[in-house]
Amino acid sequence: MRAVDLIRKKRDSGVHTRPEIDFLISSYTRGEIPDYQVAAWLMAAWLRGLNRDELTFLTEAMLHSGEVLDHSSIPGKKVDKHSTGGVGDKTSLILAPIVAAGGLTVPMISGRGLGHTGGTLDKLEAIPGFNTSLTLQQFRDVLRACGMGLIGQTSEIAPADKKIYALRDATSTVESIGLICASIMSKKLAEGIDALVLDVKTGSGAFMKQEADAVQLAEVMVQTGEGMGKKVVALITDMNQPLGRTAGHSNEIIECLDVLKGGGPADLRDLSIELSAWMFFLGEKTADVAGGRELAKAMIASGKATAKFRQNIELQGGDPRVAEEPQRLPQPHSRIDVPSPSAGFVRATNCENLGIALAILGGGREKKEDRIDHAVGLEFHQRIGDRVEKGQPLATIHYNADTKLAEARELITASYEIVASPTEKPPLIHRIIGG
Amino acid sequence: MRAVDLIRKKRDSGVHTRPEIDFLISSYTRGEIPDYQVAAWLMAAWLRGLNRDELTFLTEAMLHSGEVLDHSSIPGKKVDKHSTGGVGDKTSLILAPIVAAGGLTVPMISGRGLGHTGGTLDKLEAIPGFNTSLTLQQFRDVLRACGMGLIGQTSEIAPADKKIYALRDATSTVESIGLICASIMSKKLAEGIDALVLDVKTGSGAFMKQEADAVQLAEVMVQTGEGMGKKVVALITDMNQPLGRTAGHSNEIIECLDVLKGGGPADLRDLSIELSAWMFFLGEKTADVAGGRELAKAMIASGKATAKFRQNIELQGGDPRVAEEPQRLPQPHSRIDVPSPSAGFVRATNCENLGIALAILGGGREKKEDRIDHAVGLEFHQRIGDRVEKGQPLATIHYNADTKLAEARELITASYEIVASPTEKPPLIHRIIGG
Repeated sequence: MRAVDLIRKKRDSGVHTRPEIDFLISSYTRGEIPDYQVAAWLMAAWLRGLNRDELTFLTEAMLHSGEVLDHSSIPGKKVDKHSTGGVGDKTSLILAPIVAAGGLTVPMISGRGLGHTGGTLDKLEAIPGFNTSLTLQQFRDVLRACGMGLIGQTSEIAPADKKIYALRDATSTVESIGLICASIMSKKLAEGIDALVLDVKTGSGAFMKQEADAVQLAEVMVQTGEGMGKKVVALITDMNQPLGRTAGHSNEIIECLDVLKGGGPADLRDLSIELSAWMFFLGEKTADVAGGRELAKAMIASGKATAKFRQNIELQGGDPRVAEEPQRLPQPHSRIDVPSPSAGFVRATNCENLGIALAILGGGREKKEDRIDHAVGLEFHQRIGDRVEKGQPLATIHYNADTKLAEARELITASYEIVASPTEKPPLIHRIIGG
Repeated sequence: MRAVDLIRKKRDSGVHTRPEIDFLISSYTRGEIPDYQVAAWLMAAWLRGLNRDELTFLTEAMLHSGEVLDHSSIPGKKVDKHSTGGVGDKTSLILAPIVAAGGLTVPMISGRGLGHTGGTLDKLEAIPGFNTSLTLQQFRDVLRACGMGLIGQTSEIAPADKKIYALRDATSTVESIGLICASIMSKKLAEGIDALVLDVKTGSGAFMKQEADAVQLAEVMVQTGEGMGKKVVALITDMNQPLGRTAGHSNEIIECLDVLKGGGPADLRDLSIELSAWMFFLGEKTADVAGGRELAKAMIASGKATAKFRQNIELQGGDPRVAEEPQRLPQPHSRIDVPSPSAGFVRATNCENLGIALAILGGGREKKEDRIDHAVGLEFHQRIGDRVEKGQPLATIHYNADTKLAEARELITASYEIVASPTEKPPLIHRIIGG
C-alpha cells in the first residue's frame, strides 16, 4: 500500500477501506509517511468528505494509535463529558465533582484554550499548585481515590490525533465535521469510558455558528461512538452569549464554586445539572434523566460536590483552601466597567469577539505560545433579552496591564447589539441527539 | 500574508491575486513555507482549479524563482519546442539541428524519461562522451558557437518548479491542466526564448489520452505564453502508436541521423519538418509556415542539418563519428522478433504498454533511480492500418539481459490489436492551436 495511491483515491472521491485508513494513520504516527502526504490527503478528505464507515475506521485508527486507558480495576461505570468549546464554558469543573460525588468515575482528559475559547486545563491552573500533568499511573491513583481526575492530553493518548491536529491547524483543514468528529471521539474513547455526554455548542461564540452544522456534528459523533459500543448523547446548547456571568480563569473557578455551593447564575447551574443528569443516566446510576437531575441537585445541596472538588484539588497538588478563600486565586490589580452606549434591550452578542477581547487582555491565547494571566477576566452583567439603561455597565474588565485596555473595551462595547424593542431570550438547550 | 490563509482561500474556491501567488511561490522556494502547507494548497488547487489569471501569475512566479537566461548577446531569435512526451518521440534531436542550421538559436533545456516515456537527455547520453550537464556559461558558449545546445534542468532554472514537481509527484497532484501548464511554461520561458512550439501528444501513449484534454492543455499553454508576450503555437499530434520505427536510446539516435540525412520513417520526418517549419515561422525566419517547410527540407537536402548535429555533439564533448559510424553507439548482444499471433489489420496499439515493455527490458526507468541501458531498444514493424500475417514480426527486441524478456514479449504482443477488417490510419497532426 502506498500513501500516494490513497491520496489519489480520496482526491477522486473514492471510499477508503479499514486497512487503508489503518495504514495511513499507523504509518503516519510511526513517522513512515511524511507530513506533506498527509496534508494532501487531509485537504482531499476535507473537500471530498468521509462517509460513516470511513469515520469509524479513522476514529478507531486514531484511538488505537496510542494507549487506551484501562480502568477495569476501578469499580463502577466511567463517564465523561466533552464540549466543543465557547466563552465562559466551565461546566466540567462543576459536573465532574457532582458526578464523582454521585458514585461514578470521571476520567477527564481536557485541552487548553486558543483564540476566543477557554480551556479546562488553563482554568484549573489558576488554582495555586494544581498539577494537570500527572502520569497515567498518578491519574489512575487520583481516580481511584476520589472518582475524578483532570489532566491534559499525554503523548501516550491518541498520538495520531496530536500529530494530525497540528497539521490540520497549519493547512486550513480544521473545520471538517468528519475530521473534528474523529479527533474528539478518538481522544475521548481513549479515556476508557463507558458513556459520553457531548455538549455541542451553537451560536455566535461557538465553532458551529449554525445550528444545522452543530446538529450534523452531533449526529456523526453519536453514531461513531455508538458504532464503537459506547453510550453517547449530544446536547445542542446555546453559545450566542457567554455561559454564566464570567470568562477568565480565577473568576470562572469562583463561579464554579458558587454553583457547587448552591448559588451561581441560573444558566450555568441549569446546564451543569442537565449534563450531570445525563451522565448519571448513561452511567446507569439512575433509571432516567429526571432521576439524574435529582441526584445532581442532592450532591449540591448536601455539600458533597464541593467536598469532592476540594478533595480532587488536594490530590492533584492544588491548594484546597481556595474553596473557602477565593482570594487565594490570582487577583487583578484593577477593574473597570464597560458602560452601555445606549438604552434598550440586548438583542444579540458577538460572543466570539467577547472571547477575543479576553485574549487581547492577556486572559486567553491569541497564539499557542502565549502565556495566560489567570487574574484577567470579564464579568458580564447583561444577557440577551435584558433591559439596559444608557451608561449602565454591560461588563466589567478585570485587568493587570492597561496597554490593550482601550482596544478590548471597544471590542466589548461593539459586541452588544442594543435595540429599542423587547427581545427574546434564546433557549439554553436547543436539541438533544441520541441518548 | 500567511500560507494558512491562502490555503483556506483556495479551499473555499477563492481566486488568488498576483501578490498572493508571488508570496506562496517565493516563500516556498526560499524554504520559508513547509512542504505540508504547499501540499495542502496543491490539492486545493487541483480540486478547485486555477483560472487564467492565476495561471499566468503562477507561471511567472515559478519562472522568476530562478535565473531567466539572457541570450541578448547572441544575435537573432531564440526558439524552442516542447513535447508533452510519448514513445519514440525523438523530434528534438532532428529539429534542433535543422532550425540551428537555418539560422535561429535553439536553447533547449530537456528532461529525462520516466515510466513509459523517453527523455531527450537520456537519448543524447547514448552518444559516448556527450555532456548534458553544462554550466550556464558553457551552454551560452555552445549556443553562440553552433546555434543549438541541449542540457538538463539546472538548479538555477525555475527552482520552484523542481520543488513543486517533486511534491506533486508524492501527493497525487500531477494531472492538473493548470499545474502542468505552469510547470512546462515556467521552465521553457526561463530559457530566454522569443517563441515556442508545443507538441501536445494525444492517444494511448500520451499523458493526455483524450484529445479534448490535450486541446484544453494546449489552449491554456498558448494563452499563458502569449499573455507573457511570447509567440506560441501548439500542435496536437498523434501518440496512438510510437513515433517512427524505434524506441530506445542508441537506435533512436540512429533513426534521427537517418532523417537528418534525408531518410527515416515518413511520420517522424513529416512531424520533424512540420515542427521545424513552425519554429522558422514564429522565429521570423520565413514569412509563413510553408516557407518554413521548404527551409527545413533544404537544411536536410544540403547536409547542413547533419553537419550542425555533428558540430553540436563535438562541442558538448560527444564522439561526432557516430554520425557516420553508428556502431560506435552502445550495441545490444541479442535481437529477437515478436511475431503476430494472428493475421489481419492493426487496429490500435496500447502505446503506453509498449513504452513500459521497453522500461522493463532496462531501456527506460520504472523508478527515478533506475539506470538506463542505452543499447536496449524496440523496433516497430507494423503501424496502425497495416496488413499483417500470422507469425510476421510486429516488433524486434534489442536486449542485453533476458531475465525479463518473456514478460516484455507478452506485453508487446498484447499491445497490438489485430482485427479481420481493414482499419484506418490515424492522422499525424490532429489540430493546431494558436500560432
